Amino acid sequence: MSTSGPDVTISTLTPRATATHRAIITEVTVTPVAFADPPLLNSVGVHEPFALRAIVVVRTADGVYGLGETYGDEAHVTRLNRAAALLIGADAFNINQISALVAESLLEDQGLGGHGTGGMVTTTSLQDRVLSAFDVAALDIQGKILGVPVSTLLGGAVRDEVAFSGYLFYKWAGHPGQSPDAWGGAVDPAGIVAQARKMVNDYGFTALKLKGGVFEPEIEAATIEALREAFPEMPLRIDPNGVWTVQTAIKVGKRLEPVLEYLEDPCLSIADNAAVRAAVNLPIATNMCVVSFNDVPPAIAAGAVDIVLSDHHFWGGLRRSQGLASIAETFKLGLSMHSNSHLGISFAAMIQLAAATKNIDYACDTHWPWKLASDDVIVPGVLEIKDGSVKVPTKPGLGVELDEEALERMHQQYLKCGLTKRDDTTYMQSIQPDFQLTTPRW
Amino acid sequence: MSTSGPDVTISTLTPRATATHRAIITEVTVTPVAFADPPLLNSVGVHEPFALRAIVVVRTADGVYGLGETYGDEAHVTRLNRAAALLIGADAFNINQISALVAESLLEDQGLGGHGTGGMVTTTSLQDRVLSAFDVAALDIQGKILGVPVSTLLGGAVRDEVAFSGYLFYKWAGHPGQSPDAWGGAVDPAGIVAQARKMVNDYGFTALKLKGGVFEPEIEAATIEALREAFPEMPLRIDPNGVWTVQTAIKVGKRLEPVLEYLEDPCLSIADNAAVRAAVNLPIATNMCVVSFNDVPPAIAAGAVDIVLSDHHFWGGLRRSQGLASIAETFKLGLSMHSNSHLGISFAAMIQLAAATKNIDYACDTHWPWKLASDDVIVPGVLEIKDGSVKVPTKPGLGVELDEEALERMHQQYLKCGLTKRDDTTYMQSIQPDFQLTTPRW
Repeated sequence: MSTSGPDVTISTLTPRATATHRAIITEVTVTPVAFADPPLLNSVGVHEPFALRAIVVVRTADGVYGLGETYGDEAHVTRLNRAAALLIGADAFNINQISALVAESLLEDQGLGGHGTGGMVTTTSLQDRVLSAFDVAALDIQGKILGVPVSTLLGGAVRDEVAFSGYLFYKWAGHPGQSPDAWGGAVDPAGIVAQARKMVNDYGFTALKLKGGVFEPEIEAATIEALREAFPEMPLRIDPNGVWTVQTAIKVGKRLEPVLEYLEDPCLSIADNAAVRAAVNLPIATNMCVVSFNDVPPAIAAGAVDIVLSDHHFWGGLRRSQGLASIAETFKLGLSMHSNSHLGISFAAMIQLAAATKNIDYACDTHWPWKLASDDVIVPGVLEIKDGSVKVPTKPGLGVELDEEALERMHQQYLKCGLTKRDDTTYMQSIQPDFQLTTPRW
Repeated sequence: MSTSGPDVTISTLTPRATATHRAIITEVTVTPVAFADPPLLNSVGVHEPFALRAIVVVRTADGVYGLGETYGDEAHVTRLNRAAALLIGADAFNINQISALVAESLLEDQGLGGHGTGGMVTTTSLQDRVLSAFDVAALDIQGKILGVPVSTLLGGAVRDEVAFSGYLFYKWAGHPGQSPDAWGGAVDPAGIVAQARKMVNDYGFTALKLKGGVFEPEIEAATIEALREAFPEMPLRIDPNGVWTVQTAIKVGKRLEPVLEYLEDPCLSIADNAAVRAAVNLPIATNMCVVSFNDVPPAIAAGAVDIVLSDHHFWGGLRRSQGLASIAETFKLGLSMHSNSHLGISFAAMIQLAAATKNIDYACDTHWPWKLASDDVIVPGVLEIKDGSVKVPTKPGLGVELDEEALERMHQQYLKCGLTKRDDTTYMQSIQPDFQLTTPRW
């Protein structure tokens, strides 16, 4: 679990002249953890009983630590550890140096696996995916040493709270063989409306997103319409994760034109989303066809999307995500945030980034309500969704603290649960043997 | 000259929660200065005997100061002072807040004049042009308070020295009525070769740029060929400042294909440069047709350029220039830096930015050798071009210190010289009454 070790030689390109003694990295630990996850349905299957994350703790010479959180898939954890070994002796104030060392650690990597998204997003940049947690941890350290929140390191807060959307899922009442969870089942429009009422009651969300791609488009469109009836003023979005044909997407899109705030990833490819966008009078959002800097030029050339749902976990961390924000501003693209199942370190990082990013134009996604409050690695009480928003922590760094005991407990939970990568499809097939991955499905 | 004053109400969008007492801005002074400038020839005329700059000094509650340098044209100085008044009470750690206040100061501005480039570049963003010096001064303050160089605030140095190119100009031996300057005249190929030898001897430059657009293209092409003969291995560039027709640019470009590293602004418009680029096998660089974020999408769509010569003075400062760097990296554009006549604060800012920007792909432009060593507002001795490069200062902030006496002396020089804006054309016409501004000229 620990990758601390002796100093290694650092690339001469990245001088150490600016390193303060306090900021030299002396230890990096990468700890896979597991937390309980409800049976949330999606296009590739269903969430397993446990979601996996890797917690990165970077420590410096005099014991300042920084936190990062990322995917917990085994292949990704292996890569994190390989990078971690090179980071010993590096300067936590030099993210360019850290990026170069991460690249070095990946030189002979074939890039297989470790996407951590259950097969839904597989074209992200390997280097950016591995860099992300270290970028966040380095910024956490910088903020702590300098006495400023990460939002300040990113240019300064433009808001003191960040709005999130309520993330609705079709779901079973409980995992097979387990008792129902607190949310209960939601496999039809009425079930989703009930779930939405609880979401809005508990958290005050001012926007709602439905994870689609689960049932016939007819049912999912009807679900959106039922939500509109129940919440006449609420911005609504649907995300079928790219399993619709262009024809279906246009048909459903036209039907939902009067209702939706935006339509997310109706289809998988840049070309198909461009075709939908040309035919439907709705903003098209994506976190599936524009998932790396390499995707940006062809997506812009094709006019594929209106809104990029950024995700610092695969866009190379917070600084690189600010580069994406500059691109979005320049090309008049909307910007918001995508989410996978996550814990508090990721949440704090998302919040610090959104706080300092002028052009976050929509309430961001988060899976936060879907995890148990007791399942986290941070000292609780800092991040709370109230009236649909979270107050931006103003303490130095990310503003959250590691709970070492909780980390150990959740690492044990990881060891016990037996999962080593996210695989919604195999889990679904163990319950519904005839489930097939087909894209597009409808 | 001083704009210090009582606190003003700050936009509620930009909370003060993260401000430390030390970083609250209590005084901003904007001081126009003048420094001796040789008679350098260009497409719009000739440099006047004095070049103008504005020096911005931002002071915080406990006397930490930050430095910025920008154009000294009267219209620009007026805008700087208007913005400065709003910045009193703002947080030097919140550049997003500073940017919002600068925008506020420009709400009723018609945007006329103040470009500071002698009419050569007039389509830059007003807000970015005014923001720039304050962004630099704020970063200087942040670095001083935090004890880190600006390169660290920008993500960390990737190099410990920054390469510059030797900037060659056709020139007269001296201003009319004055004795010749130390450089002597250069109005033909032999004169430029002699000037280049002195440049390379004195500073060790490893790349050379010729300011063209002055003589018939035939003469300027012959000048480049003479430079090639004198310096067989030296990367060479020519910049006619957009005064060639597409036809001329293609003809000269083809002739110089075997010789040039890149061809800079052969024509003025995006469309014309795209036509040249399609016909000539040379990278096309620009600091004239892509000068603001608004220019980027059409330039990319048209395939107009290969290399953007960034300039933090009109791209909104160092943080915004990093956004441009992200765009360049994403769209596989080369990146380097443009220069106007400048003093040491601008030079330090360029160096800190280049130090932290991975994808600065070419030796950057600078007018540094053309000013007298005695003409500056910073304490001398920090910035020295040796072997064509400048060591990146590693002291906190920009790494340069204000010489208050020199600032006052150069402000007196400004008052005495009588110039209030850069106007190479009128000066030229006072000497050669038949000189006409025609674009394209050849």
